Amino acid sequence: MLELIKILNYKEKLLKGSFGIERETLRVTPEGDLALTMHPKAFGSKISNPYITTDFSESQIELITPPLSTVDEAYNFLSALYDMTVLELNNEYLWPQSMPCNIPEEKKIPLAQYDIEDAYKGEKASNYRKHLLKKYGGKKQLISGIHFNFSFNENLIKDLYKVSGFNKEYIEFRNDIYLKVVRNYLRYRWLIIYLLGGTAVMHESFGNKCVIKLDKVNEGSFSNEGAVSYRNSECGYKNPIDLYPNYNSVKEYVNSVKKFINDKVIDSHKELYTQIRLKAYDNDNFLDSLLEKGINYLEMRSIDINPFDKTGISREDLNFIVLFLLYLLIKEESDFENWQEEAQNNQNIIALYGQKDIVLLKDGEEISKDKWAIEILEEMKEILKVLSIEKDEIIDNMILKVKNPSLIYAARISEIVKKEGFIEGHMNLSKKYRDDAFVNRYKLEGYEDLELSTQILMKEAIKRGIKVELIDRTENFIALTKDNHTEYIKQATKTSKDNYVTVLMMENKTVTKKVLEKNNIKVPKGFEFYSLEEAIENLNEFKNEAVVIKPKSTNFGIGVSVFKDKVSEETIINALERAFKHDTTVLVEEFINGKEYRFLVIGDKVHGILHRVPANVVGNAKNTIQELVEIKNLNPLRGKGYKKPLEKIELDEDVKMFLREKGMTINYVPNNNEIVYLRENSNISTGGDSIDYTDLMPEKFKKIAIESAKAVGAAICGVDMIIEDYRDKNSRYAIIELNFNPAIHIHCYPYEGKERKIAEEVLALLGFI
Amino acid sequence: MLELIKILNYKEKLLKGSFGIERETLRVTPEGDLALTMHPKAFGSKISNPYITTDFSESQIELITPPLSTVDEAYNFLSALYDMTVLELNNEYLWPQSMPCNIPEEKKIPLAQYDIEDAYKGEKASNYRKHLLKKYGGKKQLISGIHFNFSFNENLIKDLYKVSGFNKEYIEFRNDIYLKVVRNYLRYRWLIIYLLGGTAVMHESFGNKCVIKLDKVNEGSFSNEGAVSYRNSECGYKNPIDLYPNYNSVKEYVNSVKKFINDKVIDSHKELYTQIRLKAYDNDNFLDSLLEKGINYLEMRSIDINPFDKTGISREDLNFIVLFLLYLLIKEESDFENWQEEAQNNQNIIALYGQKDIVLLKDGEEISKDKWAIEILEEMKEILKVLSIEKDEIIDNMILKVKNPSLIYAARISEIVKKEGFIEGHMNLSKKYRDDAFVNRYKLEGYEDLELSTQILMKEAIKRGIKVELIDRTENFIALTKDNHTEYIKQATKTSKDNYVTVLMMENKTVTKKVLEKNNIKVPKGFEFYSLEEAIENLNEFKNEAVVIKPKSTNFGIGVSVFKDKVSEETIINALERAFKHDTTVLVEEFINGKEYRFLVIGDKVHGILHRVPANVVGNAKNTIQELVEIKNLNPLRGKGYKKPLEKIELDEDVKMFLREKGMTINYVPNNNEIVYLRENSNISTGGDSIDYTDLMPEKFKKIAIESAKAVGAAICGVDMIIEDYRDKNSRYAIIELNFNPAIHIHCYPYEGKERKIAEEVLALLGFI
Repeated sequence: MLELIKILNYKEKLLKGSFGIERETLRVTPEGDLALTMHPKAFGSKISNPYITTDFSESQIELITPPLSTVDEAYNFLSALYDMTVLELNNEYLWPQSMPCNIPEEKKIPLAQYDIEDAYKGEKASNYRKHLLKKYGGKKQLISGIHFNFSFNENLIKDLYKVSGFNKEYIEFRNDIYLKVVRNYLRYRWLIIYLLGGTAVMHESFGNKCVIKLDKVNEGSFSNEGAVSYRNSECGYKNPIDLYPNYNSVKEYVNSVKKFINDKVIDSHKELYTQIRLKAYDNDNFLDSLLEKGINYLEMRSIDINPFDKTGISREDLNFIVLFLLYLLIKEESDFENWQEEAQNNQNIIALYGQKDIVLLKDGEEISKDKWAIEILEEMKEILKVLSIEKDEIIDNMILKVKNPSLIYAARISEIVKKEGFIEGHMNLSKKYRDDAFVNRYKLEGYEDLELSTQILMKEAIKRGIKVELIDRTENFIALTKDNHTEYIKQATKTSKDNYVTVLMMENKTVTKKVLEKNNIKVPKGFEFYSLEEAIENLNEFKNEAVVIKPKSTNFGIGVSVFKDKVSEETIINALERAFKHDTTVLVEEFINGKEYRFLVIGDKVHGILHRVPANVVGNAKNTIQELVEIKNLNPLRGKGYKKPLEKIELDEDVKMFLREKGMTINYVPNNNEIVYLRENSNISTGGDSIDYTDLMPEKFKKIAIESAKAVGAAICGVDMIIEDYRDKNSRYAIIELNFNPAIHIHCYPYEGKERKIAEEVLALLGFI
Repeated sequence: MLELIKILNYKEKLLKGSFGIERETLRVTPEGDLALTMHPKAFGSKISNPYITTDFSESQIELITPPLSTVDEAYNFLSALYDMTVLELNNEYLWPQSMPCNIPEEKKIPLAQYDIEDAYKGEKASNYRKHLLKKYGGKKQLISGIHFNFSFNENLIKDLYKVSGFNKEYIEFRNDIYLKVVRNYLRYRWLIIYLLGGTAVMHESFGNKCVIKLDKVNEGSFSNEGAVSYRNSECGYKNPIDLYPNYNSVKEYVNSVKKFINDKVIDSHKELYTQIRLKAYDNDNFLDSLLEKGINYLEMRSIDINPFDKTGISREDLNFIVLFLLYLLIKEESDFENWQEEAQNNQNIIALYGQKDIVLLKDGEEISKDKWAIEILEEMKEILKVLSIEKDEIIDNMILKVKNPSLIYAARISEIVKKEGFIEGHMNLSKKYRDDAFVNRYKLEGYEDLELSTQILMKEAIKRGIKVELIDRTENFIALTKDNHTEYIKQATKTSKDNYVTVLMMENKTVTKKVLEKNNIKVPKGFEFYSLEEAIENLNEFKNEAVVIKPKSTNFGIGVSVFKDKVSEETIINALERAFKHDTTVLVEEFINGKEYRFLVIGDKVHGILHRVPANVVGNAKNTIQELVEIKNLNPLRGKGYKKPLEKIELDEDVKMFLREKGMTINYVPNNNEIVYLRENSNISTGGDSIDYTDLMPEKFKKIAIESAKAVGAAICGVDMIIEDYRDKNSRYAIIELNFNPAIHIHCYPYEGKERKIAEEVLALLGFI
């Protein structure tokens, strides 16, 4: 096999495939008790949300990534799922450990509840849970873990088929590949359990016969010396008796499973709790589908929650698993007959005593755990070398864990429990992870190359179980699908709800103004002149007004004159001449004094109002401007290059010049509460502050914004309004501009004021909520 | 007044205002008989079409321009109305003369019919017509004319008000201005009748007492020596007795009209057939509205149809009228008391004997027509000089007509009738005007600066009585309104019916392909590679296919390789290397051999299919290529610079080079039916031919085009499909591109094949039909 793969020359491409992670976790109170509240409404139906659902118990959340082509993407997605889930909880946390927290007596453990609309599937799921409760007990059901689903790059298998000279159907070749991986996985699973095991302590409330036999580690928690993974031990969740299906061929596998069912050892294939599972294309008709279409993918089930990673599994471990899979694909098998029983035995020993210097059985021969482990890991390195894959570091790291058991998660978590207690030790981690999620709230991990508005929208969609697809990543073009309803969206606010001509109207300042005027909405009066002569001819029309004279297409204030009061004709003509130097078209517009506000209209409501102020610091009579800027820049929402909702203030030449004009330097110490502006422009992109006014703005102006959007027929519209004094209902105002692609992140994460849930409104507009 | 106006220094701006023209015309058979058919359905409701309706008779069309700010615009609009109207007639023409054609006996003249949906207004209009028929007779109602509506530039009146020192309300000042113009118009109307009169012959079928008194001019037509305007004579359409309302003030005017009504001389103000009419803001409450809001505008009614202009009034005459109005505004009045009777008398003399050397009365004193006319015209020139308006030429032209009566329309039409006969002479003009309209069919006169597609759409809208507004002329942005329903449209096919994200999908080739593929629609398979290495890694995926390898963003064939058959790996890699020299992204696409067709989908139907071929000539064994090109370029649909649906072929260097490669020059004489292509590319813009395939294309491909549009949710979509052989239902094909702003003019006016009525379909989609 190694030779065949080498011929293909796939190199790093061998590490691509299809990878999905499922992670179970318990909701807990701040005290580490199982939460007895309902699964949050925001996640929608447990049946139809493919990302966030519940497992056995109402309190047991299951996070599921879609299949992704690298484990890094899968890790990112899982991390994002964690963040959005934990932030939706009300004073609850996610338990960072496979073995349960402080749980109540069996009958108080809430079974998962199903919505009325999920009647059929819900009832099925509910009945299944009742059956499990009866057969295995409720407490065991609360044990959580990581399931890792994977298939190889299909092109790899196809190419292998071609070069192998295999003389039967492709589907058989493919089945053989996966069955070999299954058998090898079962043989070598003890190594995975050792390296990733993290359940060496149990809480007394778990209270089965296992706990009784153990030593007390700390108040309420018990263990035994050398334990690695109680979850993978006899104390864990497994079939009452060890079952060994036949893995020689799919046909033999199906027959053996059928026999278990006939013999009433299990009720259905779903109850076969093997360490690795075959997955069919149609899991509702699992056995038939397997026979007909072959193996779809595999599911590894041995991995404990890693308490030291927010997601429950580390990026490094995932990358190790991919290399391990390659090993399993390549490694030739021995013909030892009782390999299944031997492997089960090795698992049992490792699970309970893996940290010790123990002896395992390899093809019936004794071998020290360390020796065998190093042997496998060195073989892996050898294979990588042959295939020109440079990932030795990952394996070396595992070799260290073999040589020094105190480095494995099981040992480390035991140490913490000893020091901090079982509940407190774990809760400290939970709380840290929640804080981390809060800091990350504005972004979607793994998608940081997308615009923030798109990340926020995707995050909200995923949370609600809406399927998200990237149609054109560089263009922020996504598709959202739920219940056969698909919506395409570009840049978060370009949607099917706005018609094309509405957008074209907003894009064209002249048209916007005309249409607003037609609808009796106040816009600055204005003229467009194509020659100085024409402008002078029409001087009477505006010479007595406060006006702005500006070239049509310059944007940086060049050639612009503002006359707040009446001036002489000559002055106006001079200003016109100046403007015509920069453009062949000059605009003369009514000047309106006031502050500019961005009203975000979605549907027929204003969902956010923002005012932007230039970069500034507020003095404390102690720090210099430079120091105050440094302090302000510590805000985790401030970043560089539009990766965060706000930008760090840079003390560049422009700022220094601006200060110099005011007679200041960056070493000036502003007085207490003295506001020092650092720039002229109020752009967020140059460190400006955004301030939410949504609740302060009187209804009157909100209505005007809504009417403006309606005038052009816009469903999503950023209305820029200038208002002299918003507190005065009779204040002068005018609509400056309508924006057809308003950013949403500025309202979601303002510098000052309430964070607005805009993504929710966009999803509602699109009919998803 | 002249001094005041001079102060304002308006110059040419004085000639701007608000001008609208109404032109009546009879529908006639090719034999010059009154058409007894119904008003064409295409013009919609007679009540709600503001542009094309009927007057008294079902056979009497009335063309109405909206108010426009120059007479040139009004002329253009009227010309366009003429064209679209006459092209809608089925073997009928528009009579080019105020006095009727060959008309049947009274009871056979069809009264205008009204649609059921216009029930209320229709019945009112119908009853009014019955009343007129009874009082004035049906034949007289068929006399047609030009009504010229106008108001001055409002700013001019406002500025005059300011500088005049007038000490009462603005509305009174404004009324005074218009009343002075009315009085002066009445005084000097004889000159207008003389200069523009065109009814010096009548057909015997008109048969009232007037005809009996006249001399026979030619078979069936009668006149008297010196006649200018029977329409403005006792034989024309007028009140049974001369009525002289009081024009001193609006109040006195209203009182005098009320007295006429009380005295039962007339039934309503509408029946007051004065040579100039006051118009109110609310014509349904005419007298009250006049009193309350003053005069809105004036309507001149003296102008005969000019048989020598398609529109019924020449551009030059309109420009003269504007200067004349300025004269009427400025010319101070005498205090002669019986001016109304005197003016009526002068009109009567001019109408019947104007071509002769006659004597008129001016303030009770006799004066020769010529002397007085020259006096007025010279005064006009004097005024223009003072106001710095250079339009002497227009007046000089009129002076010539005074000095030489044979130049006036009345004389010229009499000459034609003498030579060709009344019916034939006029019909020859009618037929010429219809031919002219046909040649113009692809454009909207006065709007040639707009894109052809927009012109075609506007023309169709106007014809159907949909109000058209130019929102942003340079952007081809229009608004269409009918019955309170407004649609905004940019570039003819960017409408509210397409949603924004649909357009964004079509704009993005990657997204289009993905979405079409998702919908199981055939697109060329393809890959996008970001490095040569990546492309080579994936070689297996496409190396056995017919492919096109091309840099992503070069468009002129640079770096493109086409492999129609399997080639060696090395050749493919060379092609990839070449492509990567031109771009960092390279596309590898399945090659499909065949012809490209543009399917125009609107709603859920294909309305046009076009195939384009490169510029070419077809030989006749006689002419050289150069000569054949010249002949082909004579096609009136070929123009230069996209002003016409097709472009003239230019024999430029590219063509010569292209011919040289085939061993030809432009002096080569192609054999009979030999097709010589002149260029590689098939663009219309370089003289290519467009060929309509709408009726030839099998349903299967039409359905695929419709499904493609539906896949992205497009209401209007140009689907570019490549088909190996359209006659073969099983032919290979693929969708190349979807266009969100397909041109419509190419389908309306192809080089070969049926002209498609696409504008109609766009209007139907927008809910206007």
